Amino acid sequence: YYLLESSDIVNIYRQRQSFSHKGTFGHALIYAGSIGKSGAALLCAEACIYSGAGLTSVCIPEEDRIALHTRLPEAMYLNIEDAWKIERRAAFSAIAIGPGLGNNTSLIEQIIKETKVPLVIDADGLNYLALNQSLLGLLPKRTILTPHMKEFDRIFGESSSWWSRLLLAIRKAKEYQIIIVLKNRYTFIILEDGRVMINPTGSPAMASGGMGDALTGIIVSFIAQGYTSEEACILSCYLHGKAGDSLAAAGRSPVSATQLIAKMPFIIGDIKN
Amino acid sequence: YYLLESSDIVNIYRQRQSFSHKGTFGHALIYAGSIGKSGAALLCAEACIYSGAGLTSVCIPEEDRIALHTRLPEAMYLNIEDAWKIERRAAFSAIAIGPGLGNNTSLIEQIIKETKVPLVIDADGLNYLALNQSLLGLLPKRTILTPHMKEFDRIFGESSSWWSRLLLAIRKAKEYQIIIVLKNRYTFIILEDGRVMINPTGSPAMASGGMGDALTGIIVSFIAQGYTSEEACILSCYLHGKAGDSLAAAGRSPVSATQLIAKMPFIIGDIKN
Amino acid sequence: YYLLESSDIVNIYRQRQSFSHKGTFGHALIYAGSIGKSGAALLCAEACIYSGAGLTSVCIPEEDRIALHTRLPEAMYLNIEDAWKIERRAAFSAIAIGPGLGNNTSLIEQIIKETKVPLVIDADGLNYLALNQSLLGLLPKRTILTPHMKEFDRIFGESSSWWSRLLLAIRKAKEYQIIIVLKNRYTFIILEDGRVMINPTGSPAMASGGMGDALTGIIVSFIAQGYTSEEACILSCYLHGKAGDSLAAAGRSPVSATQLIAKMPFIIGDIKN
Amino acid sequence: YYLLESSDIVNIYRQRQSFSHKGTFGHALIYAGSIGKSGAALLCAEACIYSGAGLTSVCIPEEDRIALHTRLPEAMYLNIEDAWKIERRAAFSAIAIGPGLGNNTSLIEQIIKETKVPLVIDADGLNYLALNQSLLGLLPKRTILTPHMKEFDRIFGESSSWWSRLLLAIRKAKEYQIIIVLKNRYTFIILEDGRVMINPTGSPAMASGGMGDALTGIIVSFIAQGYTSEEACILSCYLHGKAGDSLAAAGRSPVSATQLIAKMPFIIGDIKN
Repeated sequence: YYLLESSDIVNIYRQRQSFSHKGTFGHALIYAGSIGKSGAALLCAEACIYSGAGLTSVCIPEEDRIALHTRLPEAMYLNIEDAWKIERRAAFSAIAIGPGLGNNTSLIEQIIKETKVPLVIDADGLNYLALNQSLLGLLPKRTILTPHMKEFDRIFGESSSWWSRLLLAIRKAKEYQIIIVLKNRYTFIILEDGRVMINPTGSPAMASGGMGDALTGIIVSFIAQGYTSEEACILSCYLHGKAGDSLAAAGRSPVSATQLIAKMPFIIGDIKN
Repeated sequence: YYLLESSDIVNIYRQRQSFSHKGTFGHALIYAGSIGKSGAALLCAEACIYSGAGLTSVCIPEEDRIALHTRLPEAMYLNIEDAWKIERRAAFSAIAIGPGLGNNTSLIEQIIKETKVPLVIDADGLNYLALNQSLLGLLPKRTILTPHMKEFDRIFGESSSWWSRLLLAIRKAKEYQIIIVLKNRYTFIILEDGRVMINPTGSPAMASGGMGDALTGIIVSFIAQGYTSEEACILSCYLHGKAGDSLAAAGRSPVSATQLIAKMPFIIGDIKN
Repeated sequence: YYLLESSDIVNIYRQRQSFSHKGTFGHALIYAGSIGKSGAALLCAEACIYSGAGLTSVCIPEEDRIALHTRLPEAMYLNIEDAWKIERRAAFSAIAIGPGLGNNTSLIEQIIKETKVPLVIDADGLNYLALNQSLLGLLPKRTILTPHMKEFDRIFGESSSWWSRLLLAIRKAKEYQIIIVLKNRYTFIILEDGRVMINPTGSPAMASGGMGDALTGIIVSFIAQGYTSEEACILSCYLHGKAGDSLAAAGRSPVSATQLIAKMPFIIGDIKN
Repeated sequence: YYLLESSDIVNIYRQRQSFSHKGTFGHALIYAGSIGKSGAALLCAEACIYSGAGLTSVCIPEEDRIALHTRLPEAMYLNIEDAWKIERRAAFSAIAIGPGLGNNTSLIEQIIKETKVPLVIDADGLNYLALNQSLLGLLPKRTILTPHMKEFDRIFGESSSWWSRLLLAIRKAKEYQIIIVLKNRYTFIILEDGRVMINPTGSPAMASGGMGDALTGIIVSFIAQGYTSEEACILSCYLHGKAGDSLAAAGRSPVSATQLIAKMPFIIGDIKN
């Protein structure tokens, strides 16, 4: 059990080098959104871009493409079938699956089996795993799952206490060689070797819809930029919470996901090595 | 007759506790909007989110879903028939009906009869009550009606003076065991036991379309967060007016509903117990 | 020839009174926009709302309704045929016709003949007048035309110099008993009795598309609020230019119409009687 | 080889004169966007407007028109066939082709052959040139190409080093009498007479999707305003980088294209002759 500190962030974060270009910072693919829940996909994509990914492609229902372009002209729209064509998929350096995805799950299984790059699975992506447990064994090493308590229990079964849930999470992370980001007031990052990192940042002002979607977007962004799954989870949980803390300290309650995302460039820009 | 003071707000408001999460702050359902008037629904939903509801689902015409996602990615879209399916409706902890609803009223009666959670009825929802007076007797206890003068008169008949209107409102609030928020320069909150609270905040700079929609969104947000109907009305009227006052004091005339909503997190964050 | 001064604005502007409500500030109808040019309608409507009209209804092509709601939820959408139905038209206290209207002109003639409230005619509305000169004699008294030089010449014929154009404008304003706002670096307001007001505010940083649309929205807003055509023109030209000056003085070049509109509440709020 | 300095900008930039109007600052045509990549077109158009063009017309797929109006009401939408009708094309004073254009290339060849005004060709427009090399010889004099390294290599063939690529670019610029803006950490502006300008501004915080689209919009904006191709390239590269530097210096990492564009009016307004 290790409590993260700001010095860990300073050690992990690598300042952007001169002569880097958008290719240096990777290309994230976000497979998210469904009719009625595409807002979650927008927040995930927005968080990805504002955390520094070089390029971000978003697979939402085509009916909601206008919302993506209007809100986030830096993003590209793809339908998931096109995105996953064999000649195209190599372009992506990290993949997030799940925010607002609903039953729009046709390619999850195929992506899990075929991906060569790290996955972040959240929300309805986790619900799909809960219903298709056999996929757990197929997850690529260091895949990141980001469940809150209920989502965790749906996948791995109910626990009688937070403590027993944590022990179960450690066991499962080791068994499947994955990283579990168990979201709570203090989020626990459970690594594939059983180590547990506890994130101290975050505020109750952040308890609102969309915050998890933003976190997923931040994680996939850092992976796209070349950080390891472990590094990306640590940076993301810490900085996401710090952005919320900073907005709350400036007098806001509640803090919305949109505002938190807009704060991210300042929080990242503030890391001094 | 009791004139609200800032100490009342401090007494009612409960600071967000550590270890709270989005579930702690409830799930509001907003049944609003119609072709041409969906802006009212957007303002209502935006006010709900920016006042702290954990989750907000919005039933507007499907044709306007893109506007909802673009403006407010934290919100979810549902069509009203899906929202009110028996397996789903239990998810909602408070319901607002009416802003911009037009003739899109097919489920009002059913919701009034079946809801287990508090209702806030505004605008075209009130007009529907005016035309269907028999529903008044079916309103759940502590339902909140938020009429301006004309809407009040349409439901309960014309009055010869503000004073006689107020007495009528007191009688009706007691008869139906509802809360009537009678909107005016000084808004009167008439409780189901006949007590009357007078709200001192607010500014003529706020006299513009959309302000009432925002107020409805704030009320339903506080109910979703677990406040009683009485507490929610007091907090909402006071803070809504204070947000407007604050923007006007900073030199704005007029104050738009959009700006007032964006100010709410600062006004709420400023309540010091 | 009278050069407007800030004291004129102070004398004309009436501070918002306590106990006023949105009805006090009127209901503006904006008949504008066409496929490809609906942005002009949005700017006009936005300027109308942010200058203080109580309610704003906008007749743009239905295909662009989503853009209106997304950008400006305070506005209502109507199609022009519905808006002009006999039972509805009495609701409007001022009408603007023209920004981005294109050939979407089917009801101009009918509105000119039937309106009981002041008209502001701009842009493609002016081009329609140029092609239908017989309508000039039917314009209600104190109708406001807001041509730039080319639009003026298209309606009233070419002039050999600014001076002869001005004399022609004076003659035409008297002949038709209308107000001509002849837009230029120094905009000339030519009243129906032949008086000429010269507006000193404005900046070359404002020379960009959409500024005229915004001015039209400001004029119709002040008329809706109960100002006379003369008062509305004086207030609008002066404050529109002052908003631009203020943004330019703060270091912006160019100043966009969107930014100018967002500044209006501060410029109006700054008028001290 | 000449390293640009701020004094070059001061010498080139012409302050906006009193009595200028939107016509003074030209009319830019932007032919960009395709299904899924229309965000690039929006960024290009936004940059064009916020850099001071008098009018901006945008040819994107009609399906994405709503996104254009919602985000950027100052812009007009046209389909490319209408825009290029013989009676209309004379209205445009500068033309950008390419951001997000995809395979939506039907009129590129015709425009290259028929244009009477300067062209800026970027992104998918460059890819089209790579596939249709015979067009290179038909480019109007002082056409501007804005390739990054990979796009350059696709058109002119691979080079073994940056130095040999630069020599090739000089040869090609002279051969075709065009200007090549070779984008990199230090962007090289290679003029048609073989002179090379090196731009010192810019930051790794800007390494993200959309930055190139913004640069193209800035260049076409300055050409529309009457600057020569050479002047426009110098102003645009320098000011684009300076806007990014300024945002990065204020603590942002990453800097998004949207934010850079919003900064442009302040950067331009800050040029003191």
